[in-house]
Amino acid sequence: MRLATLDDGTPDGRLIIISPDGSAFAFAPVQTLQTALEDWATAVATLGAVREFPEKLDLARLLAPLPRAWQWLDGSVYRSHGALMDKALGFEPFRPDWPPMYQGVSDTFYAPLADVPMVDEELGIDFEGEFGVITDRVPAGTPASVAGKHIRLLVQINDWSLRKLAGPEMKTGFGWIGAKPPCGMAPFAITPDELGENWRNFRPALRLKVDWNGEQFGDADGEPMAYGFDELVAHAARTRNLVAGTVIGSGTVSNENYREIGSSCIAERRGIETVDTGSPKTEFMKYGDTVRMEAHLPDGRAPFGVLEQRIVRAGATSA
Amino acid sequence: MRLATLDDGTPDGRLIIISPDGSAFAFAPVQTLQTALEDWATAVATLGAVREFPEKLDLARLLAPLPRAWQWLDGSVYRSHGALMDKALGFEPFRPDWPPMYQGVSDTFYAPLADVPMVDEELGIDFEGEFGVITDRVPAGTPASVAGKHIRLLVQINDWSLRKLAGPEMKTGFGWIGAKPPCGMAPFAITPDELGENWRNFRPALRLKVDWNGEQFGDADGEPMAYGFDELVAHAARTRNLVAGTVIGSGTVSNENYREIGSSCIAERRGIETVDTGSPKTEFMKYGDTVRMEAHLPDGRAPFGVLEQRIVRAGATSA
Repeated sequence: MRLATLDDGTPDGRLIIISPDGSAFAFAPVQTLQTALEDWATAVATLGAVREFPEKLDLARLLAPLPRAWQWLDGSVYRSHGALMDKALGFEPFRPDWPPMYQGVSDTFYAPLADVPMVDEELGIDFEGEFGVITDRVPAGTPASVAGKHIRLLVQINDWSLRKLAGPEMKTGFGWIGAKPPCGMAPFAITPDELGENWRNFRPALRLKVDWNGEQFGDADGEPMAYGFDELVAHAARTRNLVAGTVIGSGTVSNENYREIGSSCIAERRGIETVDTGSPKTEFMKYGDTVRMEAHLPDGRAPFGVLEQRIVRAGATSA
Repeated sequence: MRLATLDDGTPDGRLIIISPDGSAFAFAPVQTLQTALEDWATAVATLGAVREFPEKLDLARLLAPLPRAWQWLDGSVYRSHGALMDKALGFEPFRPDWPPMYQGVSDTFYAPLADVPMVDEELGIDFEGEFGVITDRVPAGTPASVAGKHIRLLVQINDWSLRKLAGPEMKTGFGWIGAKPPCGMAPFAITPDELGENWRNFRPALRLKVDWNGEQFGDADGEPMAYGFDELVAHAARTRNLVAGTVIGSGTVSNENYREIGSSCIAERRGIETVDTGSPKTEFMKYGDTVRMEAHLPDGRAPFGVLEQRIVRAGATSA
């Protein structure tokens, strides 16, 4: 099952169910995705019973599948990304034997085709291509062996980052505020069964094609996560209940063979350049730049649809 | 004006207006505090017009004034606290020339008299007495000179902390997840005019009396913030819009004369003990322990009311 949210002028939008071929939709019997997640057992039965998709889908009318959430927690579980980010940042933080994770702004997830406003072009504007999960309510202290059952939907995320603020904020130990404006989400939130055997060991085994201004920048495989999403959910819930609709991210998708498949963020390429030549040469994004992200299965299908966002000057957009 | 939220079985509760003497209330013409904050100019006019308080106030029926929020950002702006925390943690993170700030869980703020469930007594359970503000919507890039105008309400917060997780999480640079379960709030959210001349330079000039198991532990003055709340709001909004109902904290209230006035968290006392004797001796909280926090003006009034919370084993409470 693939779900999306239509812009109906309300903050949470209107939940819809996407037809198998992706061209049409039906209005869901539940008004919003947040409401569905608060009683998922009931919702999934009524959503799954829908077989007719009478409405033509216009991708430009879609919000993020979850346009706002009570909680967004982002991990960083691709080891090659961590190692290259140390090079890009110029220092090596403590690497724990559990998944590093921060809490980010969750009152806004940008629409998949949104213009994204930024206040300052000089802050090192960067994209981060990731996978994520959305959970129902998870009680505090839930172990990983149970936590995986609370993963109800998978999503594809663009975690916008401002690199010139990231290093100093990280050094305080408090995590990121200025460096992390809201994220974008690809149009479709999918149940894990949509990936078939490509959802394995709580990892999404599909590649994330990232294009910057129309040129391919990366095509990394989502599978080699050092921790599965079951472990990320358990880590997030160690001392707190996770509210229904909690979104948890993988961090930037990255593979050890980055010289062949490229990167899912600019900072990582700059880390590679630093390793190779002693200094970075690729510049960050500018106003007007676009990024396009599309995760694809071996058979070519793109289960999350396409995210394509353009950077605009804050104040110069309705987004 | 002093506002509170009555438990009516809904997640956001029912907004009420407190009588000047604190013994009675009126149901607000706006259903919830979140709704009021989303159109504050309209709400404050209708709320301020209420002059009759026909209902008797039962403090045990109150939730946090904002029982859940889209965003909770906590600063750390008392310099003596920062210096002592370095001693308690055993390392010194980077001290920037802007206010350190993290984003914490905001889908739950515990009621002022709630039993607070914790999953593990051995994690170094600690309280942190703080002041906070609640803003209406603040556009990204708003300077401090304007940001102060977006401060609509003041609150008193208990930022629960688990110290054994805090140091390692801090060293990752990602901030705190396990170390920061939900906070509690004192019963009344107040408009800044309630403090009169004791709200000055966007700082709350009143003392926060903290008792642990019935014994006074601290009585620090809120005024000596290195950054005012106007600057904290501006920092939070540097690259993101702040959603209406954003809660921003001061961090643990602390004064340079801590040997006279005590501390607002246990970790800080342990830092003092480390300075004095080379090692901490005060243990953290145990199940059944209580903390009481009451900010008081020079004339003895307690504008935020009293927070008194008891630690219980998770699963053994209805909280």
